[in-house]
This record gives sequence, structure tokens and C-alpha cells, in this order.
Amino acid sequence: MAAEAERTAVPSGPPCAPHRRRGEILEHAIFDAVLEQLRTVGYAGLTMEGVAVGAHTGKAALYRRWAGKDDLVVDALNHVLPSPCDLPDHGDVRDDLLDLLRRMTEFLNSPAGCALENVIADIEPDGRFAQLLHERVKKPRKQMFLSLLRRAAERGQIRPEAITQLVADVGPALVMQRFSADGPPVPDAYVVSVVDDIVLPLLRAPVAVR
Amino acid sequence: MAAEAERTAVPSGPPCAPHRRRGEILEHAIFDAVLEQLRTVGYAGLTMEGVAVGAHTGKAALYRRWAGKDDLVVDALNHVLPSPCDLPDHGDVRDDLLDLLRRMTEFLNSPAGCALENVIADIEPDGRFAQLLHERVKKPRKQMFLSLLRRAAERGQIRPEAITQLVADVGPALVMQRFSADGPPVPDAYVVSVVDDIVLPLLRAPVAVR
Repeated sequence: MAAEAERTAVPSGPPCAPHRRRGEILEHAIFDAVLEQLRTVGYAGLTMEGVAVGAHTGKAALYRRWAGKDDLVVDALNHVLPSPCDLPDHGDVRDDLLDLLRRMTEFLNSPAGCALENVIADIEPDGRFAQLLHERVKKPRKQMFLSLLRRAAERGQIRPEAITQLVADVGPALVMQRFSADGPPVPDAYVVSVVDDIVLPLLRAPVAVR
Repeated sequence: MAAEAERTAVPSGPPCAPHRRRGEILEHAIFDAVLEQLRTVGYAGLTMEGVAVGAHTGKAALYRRWAGKDDLVVDALNHVLPSPCDLPDHGDVRDDLLDLLRRMTEFLNSPAGCALENVIADIEPDGRFAQLLHERVKKPRKQMFLSLLRRAAERGQIRPEAITQLVADVGPALVMQRFSADGPPVPDAYVVSVVDDIVLPLLRAPVAVR
């Protein structure tokens, strides 16, 4: 009864706001617990039970939101990765490319990058999780690089005919490979060199005669 | 006594030859057992005991040749990977690049590629094994791409000033990243596109104005 009285004594905000806030706080705690599990036991070792314990909640709270660990991990990664909707727009293709690759590198160099590394290590290439990860995490972010280049072509900064999926993939692929091969941190000088010595020459130079 | 008589009855070959042959057969059986262990239990799960059992030999036979599993795995990988001493020489930079990248892809697409994938997944970036792997497996093979490009520059087929370690790394890095991200097989059309649309334009085109 005392608790009930206290609750009604709290100044009321907009309808649903307190509920929503509690929902978000719980969701963040769950995502934190997912990343912690990925860092410590990897994707293969992660369990709904373990995440529930880490987030101080029950398994029922997880299953109300996610069908299973595949969907939960994909949502947690999307939560910590730079958003695919937030395309940089500095008016210059070099600045845009550097911004996007630096966001990616910053993520890889953070503790969340270690979680991602452990996810990659455990993936079965033909499994449902690999497919989910491709559709909901990788594809929208690959699309960003392509959109960025198309906008640069509209600005007249690069040759429209130079834009292919492979050329759009080169920057992120090199940064990712450097991360996988040598581990973090990927140095900023490497990112700058990828942009200036590989990506931009491919977009600006005329096609080579074979 | 009967066994002794049989052994002396075998026609004698050149000095040491039968011993060496037996040594090689055993070494191959050991390397096969290493790769099988890497495929099934990964680098983390591989033990000298497990390799000895797989090769039908004793642990003592392994420790006579290798100080521990790090050295054994590095030697086994060097044994199955395309040799770093066998630089292709077709007289043409495109043919040379395609040949080298196709050897790499053929390896990745084979069962040994799966063993390598499991090694990569288990690596601690700062550990002794990562260092051994870098020095004795990766570095000599990176050097091949650089040597190949230098020879092409001597033939006048590419611009000498375009040759940097990063440009030499682009081809193998893209193939490796494709393998890690999407799993085997890496299609031949991808390898051809990497050479024709990325590597050669960087080597033949003039430097872009920033």
C-alpha cells in the first residue's frame, strides 16, 4: 500500500512515458548482457538463460521480445553498430568516406568490436543466423557505401560508371580484413591510406586499358 | 629373429633413402592428422595427444620434431598451402596475378581452407602463435605479391611508383574477406573481378588528384 501511494505521488509525465522508459532501460540492460556474453563465451556459448541472468531479468522477459538467440543477437548488434540510416554528408566524397570508415573502425576498436569478432568466429556460413546477420546487419551497411558514392557522382565528384558493388565494398572489406588479421586497434593512418590510395583512385581515375 | 632376417632381405636403396621415405610418410600422416583436428575441433581443441592418435604414432615422435602444437600447426599449414617459393611467371602481370590468387582460392575452397578458417577463428592476436603464423606463413606469401608486382614493373607493364604494400595486399585481402564473410567457395568470377576492376586499375592508372 505504501509503495502504491509512492507511485501515485510521482509527478505524471506524458501517457506511457514511464512505461516506455522502463522498457528501454530493460532493453539496454539486455543488449549489454548480450555483448558481455559474446565477449566472454562467444556466440556459440551464449544462452538466453545467461543473458537473462546478466540483465537481472527473467527468460520470459526475453522470449516476450525475441523468438530466440539469433534474433536477440542481431538486434543487440544493430543497437551498438553505427546506424545505417545516418549517412554522413560533408559535401565532399573524401570526407564522407573517411567519416563512414572511421565510424566503422571506432566500433571495431571498442569492446563491442571484440563481441563482433567472436560472433564472426562462430558463424556457420549456411545457417539461419548467418542469413539474418546478412539481411539485417551487413546489407543495410553495405548499402550505405553505395548510397554515399551515388551521391558523390551526383555532385560530380566521381565518375558514375566507376560505381560498382565491388568498389563500394573495397573500403569496408580492407578495414574488416585488417581487423580480423591483426586484431584491434585498426590505426587511423590505415583508414586514411585505404581512402586515399585505393578507393578514391578507383573512383576518379579513368578505366585502365587491359 | 624372423623380422630381423626379413629386414636384411629387403634390397638396399641409396643410403638413408628408405629411412627418409619412412620419415616423410610419417610426417604426411602427422600433417593430415593436424588438418583433421583443425577441421573438427579447431586450433583451441587440437592437442599433441589427438594428433598422435590420428597419425597412429606416439607423442614422443611428435616432440622429437616439434617443440609444441604452435610449431606443428604452422608446419602443417605451410605443407598444404601453395609454396611461397613458386612465383608464377607467365610474362604478363594479369596472368601472374590471376594465377597466384587462383592458387589461394583453390586452397581456401578445399577442405584445408576449412582448417585454416578454424585456425583464424581461434587466434589470440597478441599471442606467440599469431606471431609465428605471421612470420612463417603470412609474411612470405605477402612477399610473393610484392615480388610479382616488382617484376611486372621491370617488364614495363605497370607503374613502379604504384607499387606499395597496401596495393600488393588488396587482392589477397579481398579474397580472404570474401571467404571469411560468405564462406567457401569463393567464385572464380570474383577473383577475376578483383584483378580486372580493382588491382590492375590501381597499377596502371595515373594517381588521382585529391
